[in-house]
Amino acid sequence: MNKGKLFVISGPSGAGKSTVITRLLKQLNNVYFSISATTREPRRGERDGVDYHFMKKEEFEKLIDEGQLLEYAEFVGNYYGTPAKPVDQKLEAGYDVILDIETKGAEQIMAKRPDAISIFLFPGSFAILEERLRLRGTDSEEKILKRLAQAKIECKKAEMYDYIIINDRVETACDEVIAIITAEKCKTAGRLHYLKEEN
Amino acid sequence: MNKGKLFVISGPSGAGKSTVITRLLKQLNNVYFSISATTREPRRGERDGVDYHFMKKEEFEKLIDEGQLLEYAEFVGNYYGTPAKPVDQKLEAGYDVILDIETKGAEQIMAKRPDAISIFLFPGSFAILEERLRLRGTDSEEKILKRLAQAKIECKKAEMYDYIIINDRVETACDEVIAIITAEKCKTAGRLHYLKEEN
Repeated sequence: MNKGKLFVISGPSGAGKSTVITRLLKQLNNVYFSISATTREPRRGERDGVDYHFMKKEEFEKLIDEGQLLEYAEFVGNYYGTPAKPVDQKLEAGYDVILDIETKGAEQIMAKRPDAISIFLFPGSFAILEERLRLRGTDSEEKILKRLAQAKIECKKAEMYDYIIINDRVETACDEVIAIITAEKCKTAGRLHYLKEEN
Repeated sequence: MNKGKLFVISGPSGAGKSTVITRLLKQLNNVYFSISATTREPRRGERDGVDYHFMKKEEFEKLIDEGQLLEYAEFVGNYYGTPAKPVDQKLEAGYDVILDIETKGAEQIMAKRPDAISIFLFPGSFAILEERLRLRGTDSEEKILKRLAQAKIECKKAEMYDYIIINDRVETACDEVIAIITAEKCKTAGRLHYLKEEN
């Protein structure tokens, strides 16, 4: 059996990562969606192992020290990151693994895992991105402008990624991600064993 | 508008190239299937520009001299080949172009066009290939064994290709080729222009 493949889906805030991934997971079998670990307190309604793996700070720092995180970051005193072990176990078992990661974390993973397939999601234009951020209605004007400026910086690094998906229609974006997953599994290296003479 | 992409579909005789491609062309828009040129006489029912571009020997040799063929070969005194011009015109106009080429021709194209995306079709095992060649009922036992030996040689070069499709079910094989075409169009290089700030 072939090992699974690791797919990193990233892009600026407002690109629609979680909408695309939610739809994706409904359409795909044999795919594992990696859940992040965090040291922050669970919010009302959040469940351990569903929304996040909630961890004590010491546990998380142990993972850092042992190099057992694919990526991590610290925000306002809390850690967030992706433990390597559950991802590797699923890959070994033949599952494809999908990570939803902000761009800094995605860069860490690309550096650590050259075999990871990276997909950058973008809404199609900065005007659409701005509209989406406003429609959310959760951010102040200042925060919206900050997110937009941040998105422009993040887009400059999009050439590091293997694929770019323009998420102007979630159905199309989703179909394209599925096509990428299918195509990556057709890559020659993973299929040469079918051509051996003993077959 | 983006230029189209060039897809080379190859594989041993009996892999099912033409069955897959016929099905593919029914499902895809914006795709041009390249027709080979030949200097042999049209057979009963064959139409110029549909089955082949029928050419005089001098015309074909002029194309060879001017380097205007993506690939060519000579069989029992006749030339067969792929003129570059109609392919390039379609690519420039934004069409994807699909070529159905035997493996030697595919190697010529890969050498000449590093941007070509190459797909190797294989029936899944040599036992299945043998069965298919027998089911055709057109070849002598000697010819079947010769084709099988040839297929084993061709499969050793499959690692030169970008993708391998196992054609054990034509529907799946066709879906995989379509996924490859879709995914290749999502490759970063062709989409970076969407991320420019003026957008």
